[in-house]
Amino acid sequence: MSRRRQIYEGKAKILYEGPEPGTLIQYFKDDATAFNAQKKGTISGKGVLNNRISEHLFTLLGNIGIPTHFIRRLNMREQLVRQVEIIPIEVVVRNVAAGSLSKRLGIEEGTQLPRTILEYYYKDDALGDPMITEEHIACFGWAGQDELADIVDMAIRTNDFLTGLFAGIGIRLVDFKLEFGRLWEDDYSRVILADEISPDGCRLWDMKTSEKLDKDRFRRDLGGEVEAYQEVARRLGLLPEGADGAVLDLDEARKARKGE
Amino acid sequence: MSRRRQIYEGKAKILYEGPEPGTLIQYFKDDATAFNAQKKGTISGKGVLNNRISEHLFTLLGNIGIPTHFIRRLNMREQLVRQVEIIPIEVVVRNVAAGSLSKRLGIEEGTQLPRTILEYYYKDDALGDPMITEEHIACFGWAGQDELADIVDMAIRTNDFLTGLFAGIGIRLVDFKLEFGRLWEDDYSRVILADEISPDGCRLWDMKTSEKLDKDRFRRDLGGEVEAYQEVARRLGLLPEGADGAVLDLDEARKARKGE
Repeated sequence: MSRRRQIYEGKAKILYEGPEPGTLIQYFKDDATAFNAQKKGTISGKGVLNNRISEHLFTLLGNIGIPTHFIRRLNMREQLVRQVEIIPIEVVVRNVAAGSLSKRLGIEEGTQLPRTILEYYYKDDALGDPMITEEHIACFGWAGQDELADIVDMAIRTNDFLTGLFAGIGIRLVDFKLEFGRLWEDDYSRVILADEISPDGCRLWDMKTSEKLDKDRFRRDLGGEVEAYQEVARRLGLLPEGADGAVLDLDEARKARKGE
Repeated sequence: MSRRRQIYEGKAKILYEGPEPGTLIQYFKDDATAFNAQKKGTISGKGVLNNRISEHLFTLLGNIGIPTHFIRRLNMREQLVRQVEIIPIEVVVRNVAAGSLSKRLGIEEGTQLPRTILEYYYKDDALGDPMITEEHIACFGWAGQDELADIVDMAIRTNDFLTGLFAGIGIRLVDFKLEFGRLWEDDYSRVILADEISPDGCRLWDMKTSEKLDKDRFRRDLGGEVEAYQEVARRLGLLPEGADGAVLDLDEARKARKGE
């Protein structure tokens, strides 16, 4: 593998220059962080699973007409994506009370919300990603009014689709985070779905047992992180039924990390 | 003064049953709190000044057609108001970055905002009055869509009027908090401005010196709290020009407190 220019390193991914202009390679690490990176760790094999899960979800979302940055998966840990200008807003879609919403507003975890809530957080590690509203976004120009309208539409459609998809495999989509980017074409830009969708940024609860199949296992020291991510991949049909997907994937993952 | 039934005691005010149905008596205390009541103190004479300032501002807002709960001032520390069902939302209007906005979003205090920002906080002491958005308000039914539209209209009109009023007396209206209530008439309710508007809930900076003429003097241990509130009252024409309003008011205040 030839040396590539690193564009950006985030907490769970690295972006490299892509093979042609306007593309990037998105590399999925095993690093896990929580609570604004105050807690750090590694979930061995997570990157491989998230690459695969995100590929699958972005492909399905593309099929229903939601534009995404995803082009194609390259290998176990990498995918080719369109280069976008990331909008500095994390969009959180909530169907069930959990996490910071429960804590901040005193609503018991697991309470079905009377309607879906969209929240916005300003992407700034130093500030701890503070919650913001459309007022702050408009005031400081973090996204235009038209862009925000598109973001809201895409977030709601994504939620409807993913809620259905996960319901079909016995998983309750409690909440999830989306990021969007501007795709520039000459002087014109449009907003598309970017980043990733994986158990790192979703709360996924087993419908029967309420078992957490997401990063809360890491945040709350529940253990079994990689098994939970594997279970999501397995139910999505991404691991061979019956086969020990874990070993298989981790094996390939080690090779990928060594650049084999 | 006959004994009256106390309806509610807040951090800076007490509400008593009024002389006729649908009215309350709003009593202004000298108690001051900050940082979700973690800091407590007394600003001697504050209640008298806030009663007078709030009377003045609510009267002027009523004159431009903004409905308020204010009926008339009864004495140094009390005013007669309409009984409303308080909507559990604090509306903060910001023209200049300061306080929590500066801290949360990393914007230097004193920065003129490109446009006015409205923020909402859920009134809940135990939760520390967390910031919320229209999404949470709609989801949990804290105010109806029509009510919120009226609240936004009134908040913007109030900001325009007060910004002008304070500019006329050399004061920069940095930000302020409003509360609204439902006035029930048979089965129908409409939203009116309630609570108070005073230096307790506003940031008021002298335009020339940037001196703080508000509760930040207490929050930040700057001293001279009552003198600052008096200065606001004096510029609003509420203290006799040249006379030592402080002594005058505090004297009357003591009498009022003793029920004389």
